[in-house]
Amino acid sequence: MPDLVLISDSSMFGEDIPSICYGLRGLTYMQIEVTGPNKDLHSGSFGGAVHNPIQALSEIIAQLHDKNGRVTIPGFYDDVRALTRKEREAFKKLPWSDRKYAAELGVKQLYGEKGFTTLERLWARPTLECNGIWGGFTGEGAKTVLPSKASAKISMRLVPDQSSAKIAKLFERHIKKIAPKTIQVTVKSLHGGEPAITPIDSPGVTAAVAALEKGFGKTPLYQREGGSIPIVVQFKQLLGIDTVLLGFGQPDENAHAPDEFINLDHFYGGIQTAVHFFNELPSHMAGSRKKR
Amino acid sequence: MPDLVLISDSSMFGEDIPSICYGLRGLTYMQIEVTGPNKDLHSGSFGGAVHNPIQALSEIIAQLHDKNGRVTIPGFYDDVRALTRKEREAFKKLPWSDRKYAAELGVKQLYGEKGFTTLERLWARPTLECNGIWGGFTGEGAKTVLPSKASAKISMRLVPDQSSAKIAKLFERHIKKIAPKTIQVTVKSLHGGEPAITPIDSPGVTAAVAALEKGFGKTPLYQREGGSIPIVVQFKQLLGIDTVLLGFGQPDENAHAPDEFINLDHFYGGIQTAVHFFNELPSHMAGSRKKR
Repeated sequence: MPDLVLISDSSMFGEDIPSICYGLRGLTYMQIEVTGPNKDLHSGSFGGAVHNPIQALSEIIAQLHDKNGRVTIPGFYDDVRALTRKEREAFKKLPWSDRKYAAELGVKQLYGEKGFTTLERLWARPTLECNGIWGGFTGEGAKTVLPSKASAKISMRLVPDQSSAKIAKLFERHIKKIAPKTIQVTVKSLHGGEPAITPIDSPGVTAAVAALEKGFGKTPLYQREGGSIPIVVQFKQLLGIDTVLLGFGQPDENAHAPDEFINLDHFYGGIQTAVHFFNELPSHMAGSRKKR
Repeated sequence: MPDLVLISDSSMFGEDIPSICYGLRGLTYMQIEVTGPNKDLHSGSFGGAVHNPIQALSEIIAQLHDKNGRVTIPGFYDDVRALTRKEREAFKKLPWSDRKYAAELGVKQLYGEKGFTTLERLWARPTLECNGIWGGFTGEGAKTVLPSKASAKISMRLVPDQSSAKIAKLFERHIKKIAPKTIQVTVKSLHGGEPAITPIDSPGVTAAVAALEKGFGKTPLYQREGGSIPIVVQFKQLLGIDTVLLGFGQPDENAHAPDEFINLDHFYGGIQTAVHFFNELPSHMAGSRKKR
């Protein structure tokens, strides 16, 4: 039986900023279909008589966040593990500018749950996003249809200790509750995955921190990742072991694209770090066992 | 210079129910595009940082009707000509069942502006309909995109004395006003047409009523139509003359479809009515001239 798993599939925080990723978000991916009239209608002859399914779907989606950017599904936040003071402090040490980030993304103003920094929202808070919407006439020009159906794909990113299956149920129940009687709604679950976290004082993480310090000559920073690596959850569930995410790439290196590259300094720093990691690990494991 | 125009492009109210159509709605057809981030993003890595354009568009659309089904655009109803008591009474004489209509359309409950009957809403009240919406991933399965853009086609049916150009301006101003600072919105006008009404005491209409009575052996009912026949507006604007809409088809005869048909009784009744119309017209025109 192994003591832990090491995966190099995460990024460093930025150029020459070694970091250790200790948390991943999970996912609940749903699809909603709203049906109004039993066929597409002429919006002149029928407009004013029935609830337009695009309008009804929009009204449902608009109710899923409150004015503070919080998800309104009852129970949605119940199982969210609060950030520790140590984690919040660690995130604050990361070099970050909301203004620069907003400019890079081309938005005048960021948006999200009030009371949390951008990195906290991205890594440690659950979110609800519309991934797709469609209904009616979507081609060039004007067609006066009052459509029969409108649909949306909506997914939620989860954090420990939320459960993907439980969130799917809460979502479905809430949508059915707020759907007006003028339309019919179906909700189905397309996909799910659990969130994962490796405690920052676990031996794998403390060994990785010591190794990064030696490999890069700098104290690494702690970060999480907003996306998901499903196998990490399976290692924990099936084998009961933590995964250390020790990656050396950078976010702008076109991962998975034909022109992917890696900074050579990070490549050599990564080799050093890997060697140090295996040197460090036994004493950290021993220390951990002693504590127990 | 002609005295009036006669068009047979409207329907009778139903089988063996001769009716005269004296009003058509106009149209203002708009398109909205909401842009959030400058490119499609990964909903895991970025979910929680920016306002999702599908969400923002849904929030905009959800604000366009109030709880009473009224359009919330300031000034939208300012130029609406109120129904006369005579018109409301005439509509009430038409054979109508909301329950039967809802069942035919497959909805549990009708929807629309409170304080008006279904026929009033369809024929004599302006409405706002979403004709199309699209954004993000709309294929089979789950793709975790946080899209850069979301769009909708929205049209409004107009009644006398609303102006298509004025309503387009009010719409654009309102959308820009309610759009949040977290996104950018563009609004464009795709198409417009004016509403039309032919007074029910005008000589063409009174002659048509007398002709229908003789042609079908029944007093005809008055109705309007929720759709538009743009040429009617142009005859009024360019020639200053009213149009009489004297049609003999029925709503369920598959107009414009390959298997279009016409009830033979209505066909022969229509021939009789047309003959009577031209016999009746001179005296009604003379009576009208005398009144002036």
